[in-house]
Amino acid sequence: MSGFTGAAYPKELPTAIATKAREAHERGDEFAIDLLTGASTAPDCDGVLAEAEAIRYRMPYQSDPAMRAAINAGTMKYQDLHLSHSGQQVEQGFFGERIDVAVVEVTRITEEGNLIPSSGVGNNVEYLDAAERIIIEVNSWQSLNLEGMADVYRVAPLPNRGPIPIINVGDRIGTPHITIDIDKVVAVVETDSPDRNSPFKPFDETSRQIAGYFLDFLEGEVQAGRLTYDGYIMQSGVGNVPSAVMAGLLDSKFENIQAYTEVVQDGMLDLIDAGKMTVASATSFALSPQYAEKMNREAARYRRHLVTRPLQISNSPEVIRRMGLISSNGMIEADIYGNVNFTHVAGTRIMNGIGGSGDFTRNAFASTFISPASAKDGAISAIVPFASHIDHTEHDAMVVITEYGVADLRGLAPRDRAPKLIEIAHPDYRPLLEEYVERANRNAHLHTPHDLATAFDFHVNLAEKGSME
Amino acid sequence: MSGFTGAAYPKELPTAIATKAREAHERGDEFAIDLLTGASTAPDCDGVLAEAEAIRYRMPYQSDPAMRAAINAGTMKYQDLHLSHSGQQVEQGFFGERIDVAVVEVTRITEEGNLIPSSGVGNNVEYLDAAERIIIEVNSWQSLNLEGMADVYRVAPLPNRGPIPIINVGDRIGTPHITIDIDKVVAVVETDSPDRNSPFKPFDETSRQIAGYFLDFLEGEVQAGRLTYDGYIMQSGVGNVPSAVMAGLLDSKFENIQAYTEVVQDGMLDLIDAGKMTVASATSFALSPQYAEKMNREAARYRRHLVTRPLQISNSPEVIRRMGLISSNGMIEADIYGNVNFTHVAGTRIMNGIGGSGDFTRNAFASTFISPASAKDGAISAIVPFASHIDHTEHDAMVVITEYGVADLRGLAPRDRAPKLIEIAHPDYRPLLEEYVERANRNAHLHTPHDLATAFDFHVNLAEKGSME
Repeated sequence: MSGFTGAAYPKELPTAIATKAREAHERGDEFAIDLLTGASTAPDCDGVLAEAEAIRYRMPYQSDPAMRAAINAGTMKYQDLHLSHSGQQVEQGFFGERIDVAVVEVTRITEEGNLIPSSGVGNNVEYLDAAERIIIEVNSWQSLNLEGMADVYRVAPLPNRGPIPIINVGDRIGTPHITIDIDKVVAVVETDSPDRNSPFKPFDETSRQIAGYFLDFLEGEVQAGRLTYDGYIMQSGVGNVPSAVMAGLLDSKFENIQAYTEVVQDGMLDLIDAGKMTVASATSFALSPQYAEKMNREAARYRRHLVTRPLQISNSPEVIRRMGLISSNGMIEADIYGNVNFTHVAGTRIMNGIGGSGDFTRNAFASTFISPASAKDGAISAIVPFASHIDHTEHDAMVVITEYGVADLRGLAPRDRAPKLIEIAHPDYRPLLEEYVERANRNAHLHTPHDLATAFDFHVNLAEKGSME
Repeated sequence: MSGFTGAAYPKELPTAIATKAREAHERGDEFAIDLLTGASTAPDCDGVLAEAEAIRYRMPYQSDPAMRAAINAGTMKYQDLHLSHSGQQVEQGFFGERIDVAVVEVTRITEEGNLIPSSGVGNNVEYLDAAERIIIEVNSWQSLNLEGMADVYRVAPLPNRGPIPIINVGDRIGTPHITIDIDKVVAVVETDSPDRNSPFKPFDETSRQIAGYFLDFLEGEVQAGRLTYDGYIMQSGVGNVPSAVMAGLLDSKFENIQAYTEVVQDGMLDLIDAGKMTVASATSFALSPQYAEKMNREAARYRRHLVTRPLQISNSPEVIRRMGLISSNGMIEADIYGNVNFTHVAGTRIMNGIGGSGDFTRNAFASTFISPASAKDGAISAIVPFASHIDHTEHDAMVVITEYGVADLRGLAPRDRAPKLIEIAHPDYRPLLEEYVERANRNAHLHTPHDLATAFDFHVNLAEKGSME
């Protein structure tokens, strides 16, 4: 299915499939599908399907509460892939030679039988190519003026394919439509429903503080001669802190900002409107209802500044490394040596997934992780002795930022990273972290000292007593 | 300093610096350098410097026993970077604006003042560019016929640089020499000493079995239509098992094998001599003394089949992903969900470093880890409940192979990976691993079930009792 962060997912088929599943289950029959998407979708897609117990296996990224509950209850299987790998692995046949059905939302089908992507591209090209049958949802809620925003490029098959010829963020290398084998189309469904469009949450004081430190970090890069005020290239995860960062950039000295990122966010439209951002490349939208309406009204204007690309291109290691961008993503926790847990609370309870954070972190000019130092009223510390799940290793995370400051880990051996990270931990947790370091330093091996017997005490405490303290 | 896996490192300056350090220390003066190399060097480079306590900080990969001891004793600082990042981060100024001195081994200096690399290129280009002063060691032990093997290409500065125009393994895109600013040269030293060239160890029965399973895996890929017998592109770590794999390939159906890898190994020369391998691209040699002599005698012939490249190119994520290669590296341990520890025994004692294993694993068509199921006469299991250090995450490791078989983790949710990995564990450890899974499955969250309180019991046992059992 199409769909990426609540945009461009099919609006009718998921509910229809969920209904079929319920009917089958009531009859005592088995009914479960394996669902591949671009990333998270919405309650009327992932949500209804999870509630109907209609899914056996799901990949990649998801964020629906009902689906998350099913995954953590062990009733649904989920594989959390790097987004840049997901379409590629389908092409490579890791999920079988063919996909049964591709269900893809578009704004229109051209007279030649080509598909105009709606609010995102995701893995649509790979899924349409691999599918035996195609079902198209034509959604009239989406603006027809989105046409021209997508840049559809098929990477050649492996091995020994050529370079992806993108050098600048806004380069267009493909077509505005997706070509398909029309003989595979078994149905066209007309819909008129909005994307999910999570409401915008006004950012709090903590987010504002973290954003301030992030901007300080950018200023520091300028001072060090590694960045200029002209043409900073951002990648940004979604959430309160990134929104605060983008608001901060509005009033900053940075000009001609560009985004080579995964999703177009409210803050980017504000930066474009203010003349501060020239172009954003992404695979999809993640807009609030208010901004989605603005987009639908003004798509013809925004498409001069926006490019939506297949996920293999928006998240391509090749292009990301070539750009020289600064990545910025949230996290659940980082340990004292800079290993980052992006996905699992206390090592076991998955929240969403790694998404594209690995694609960007691993290939950025500089990688940053931004997060409040504590969560759940202080019950959870974002800095821990040993990350309870590791999605980004000590080799990948360069800078960690909380409301207490910036821990710049570049060029540092592990033992020199620990004090930097403890300095930006919540003050209540600093003595506990220092106690751990003291215990760890009694180890016979002092490159990456640990006391493995107590390395997860924070997490065991959380599970048993409801707090890491 | 130049140097990569015991090849192409300076032979005289390290000892001279070590002597200076000892003299200073005897006088009660401080003396310590920060040493950046291509990767591991040799006893007469890393070894003498570590023994003289002449190093404050070292990056990236190392493997010298004396150096490892100093790092684990906490008397020397070490940062273990992805090799593809190491030169790039120097260019980016993460280690300061300039390097003080570059000490680089070459076979000769041309009349124009260009340098002909000896048995490896590594980070020489970046270091020579960033250095304030240059010292050149001209080593007459190295064959002058190595000239023409190196393909020196400078990636353009960030941001928005162009593609690296390599499509096929053997493509040459640069020059056979390194251009330098001659005014920076402060000394030229003549040497005549061999590379380290670790002796070849005949492979044992276990290695032969693992190699057999690896070849079965390749055959499976052919059966699945994902690989052909013509033109398999390999990346291969160094060691007993890879040597056994290459010996196995000699008698296999695979033809026109290519290697896009880090180092040229004995087995690759055998494959070239047998007409089974057409071309190998690497950054350096890792040959036994016997094969190094053969290389020195027959470099003019071998250079038709070999390309040595700067590390940023040999390990480029861009080129690796484009090639569609199958990566194959060793490991210390994998946990039941497929997270791989490549570097630290029991989470604390560093062995060598991540090297390029992350560059290749993360961007390969398919990534494999090959290792005996147990070590130290069974005291250590290569399959554990929770990896005590994670260098390659569950998102990156696709296939794990031991002498008990192949665990193909592709397309599987975490809980479906555990039985596959336990099946290839040493039989003595399978019941213990199954007990852990049972305990973990009592967790409230069943996507990646763990019992964090006992997750490191294997490692705590090893530290306390000398065995994981």
